[in-house]
Amino acid sequence: MTSPFASLADFRALLADLPGPDAAAQAAAADRNGQLTKPPGALGRLEDLAIWFAGWQGTDRPHCDRPQVVIFAGNHGVVAQGVSAFPAEVTVQMVANFRAGGAAINQLSRTFGADMAVHAIELDQPTQDFTKAPAMTEAEVVAALATGWAAVDPAADVFVTGEMGIGNTTPAAALAAALFGGDPAGWVGRGTGVDEAGLARKASAVARGLARHAAVLDDPLEVLRCLGGRELAAMAGAIARARAERIPVVLDGFICTAAAAVLERAVPGALDHCIAGHVSAESGHGRLLAALGKEPLLNLGLRLGEGSGAALALGVVKGALACHSDMATFAEAGVSGG
Amino acid sequence: MTSPFASLADFRALLADLPGPDAAAQAAAADRNGQLTKPPGALGRLEDLAIWFAGWQGTDRPHCDRPQVVIFAGNHGVVAQGVSAFPAEVTVQMVANFRAGGAAINQLSRTFGADMAVHAIELDQPTQDFTKAPAMTEAEVVAALATGWAAVDPAADVFVTGEMGIGNTTPAAALAAALFGGDPAGWVGRGTGVDEAGLARKASAVARGLARHAAVLDDPLEVLRCLGGRELAAMAGAIARARAERIPVVLDGFICTAAAAVLERAVPGALDHCIAGHVSAESGHGRLLAALGKEPLLNLGLRLGEGSGAALALGVVKGALACHSDMATFAEAGVSGG
Repeated sequence: MTSPFASLADFRALLADLPGPDAAAQAAAADRNGQLTKPPGALGRLEDLAIWFAGWQGTDRPHCDRPQVVIFAGNHGVVAQGVSAFPAEVTVQMVANFRAGGAAINQLSRTFGADMAVHAIELDQPTQDFTKAPAMTEAEVVAALATGWAAVDPAADVFVTGEMGIGNTTPAAALAAALFGGDPAGWVGRGTGVDEAGLARKASAVARGLARHAAVLDDPLEVLRCLGGRELAAMAGAIARARAERIPVVLDGFICTAAAAVLERAVPGALDHCIAGHVSAESGHGRLLAALGKEPLLNLGLRLGEGSGAALALGVVKGALACHSDMATFAEAGVSGG
Repeated sequence: MTSPFASLADFRALLADLPGPDAAAQAAAADRNGQLTKPPGALGRLEDLAIWFAGWQGTDRPHCDRPQVVIFAGNHGVVAQGVSAFPAEVTVQMVANFRAGGAAINQLSRTFGADMAVHAIELDQPTQDFTKAPAMTEAEVVAALATGWAAVDPAADVFVTGEMGIGNTTPAAALAAALFGGDPAGWVGRGTGVDEAGLARKASAVARGLARHAAVLDDPLEVLRCLGGRELAAMAGAIARARAERIPVVLDGFICTAAAAVLERAVPGALDHCIAGHVSAESGHGRLLAALGKEPLLNLGLRLGEGSGAALALGVVKGALACHSDMATFAEAGVSGG
């Protein structure tokens, strides 16, 4: 489809006009939940999840039958600052691995019946090193947002987006620091496994990026352009599109959540259709989720990216929705209420 | 099959002679884990899980293709003490609901491809009220252990057991208090939803049960007989059988874990083939898992029983094993290592 925006101003206007949940479907689901053959509240967060999905899907019997997983890949000029344990060539190698079916996200997508797509975005043209220049021009960031927007299948019932991009925990930390403030060192973590010196280089790069782009720090979409990356912008575009289609989103780890946070800071409430699939071992992620008011479903120490934590959480989502939508009521089963 | 034990002494002897994991398979799985296309450790607990399953299944590529869920139901004389928010007739009604496919555990079993069986054990003959007499005779507890033992499918690759029995958080709390000590009030919780007065009645019943059976508190199998219930004994028997078959077990909530704890207290290490699927909202469960040194996979506020928390955790298990067993290695995918 043609993208409905040609500039960041267009995208900002679109964000301000996205639909909310279906209150009637949500109320009908809450009513149904009270009639199911279990003590009130005995399914804990699964009950809240089912009612929340009902609102976004617009039905009192929500489902996770057609989940979609979309992975975006990009390369980053800031790797010149020595911020990753892996060489940049791994991005394109891992894209090939995704396409051949060999990565973790392939196995998780298959396990939970998700359709999976991979979009490699200009891997031979890394973003600019944000310590020296804006990461992207407006045309570049808009193109990446549009790639994300176009990647969402409107027929999907649950959406997961993830990323691959050597070095991309550094732009993610820069986004988090720019959007929420605080010491840059508090937002950087070990990513794929940098040592102490690498960690210090990451903190330094983020601090220098923030200083260089100080003039735009109050504009979240400009923050995305100057400090982000193509795959981060694409994830943001995809999450916005999911909202336009009222498809509920399961957020992945630190990088996905940092990209998503751009939307929430641009228009408060823009992530109301998103839940946190997990909290990763990357140190800034828990802090970012707390800033967004999102409680993760899983806490299993993952720090892989690729949408892997969100895809794993699809198991919980599927279980919650199966219970809600397919259990018998007390009346149907002839069971005495409490 | 015929049960290999005819007395609690036989069962105790059998427990002391159960097999351990396959160390070679575990080592091979750890080696494979190091070659998969991800940064070392990036799948967090999923990696540990896969290696652990490898040991019990005796293969470096463990699987969750034939999970089995078995639900045992029983009734309890101690309900005469006013310990439940639901009437005892609900046990048989819920068994009918399981058989008709209407309960939460039916939906979760279907979601994760598990075979599910239900065994109702003498529902018209509740155990004795343990505040007044031993809950079961030796013949009764041995019969319940044997029912559990026989219920396990030796071809299953992962085993889950759960329960239904109005009033059974009270015998579970009595087992926990007898096995691990401490104030009875610290082990009782709201179960399906008792009020403050019901909670006080539960604590009182447990305290009176412990006092009445003080002479047997140092013998875990006698504790099971005097303070447990038929479905608790059946779960213990099934978990022991799974060990005999080296089938890894995912433990469910408070009642399942209390039944399992009998085995661990009888023979330390008897639960080495078990992981904790979740920690429930029932207050004693977290304490019981800590006493057993088991860290739960999920923490979603469930308190339903029926094996529901363990069945939900099968999603995490399936994801972990799919990643481990089906991902490409660095060499296979042509990806540069870190």
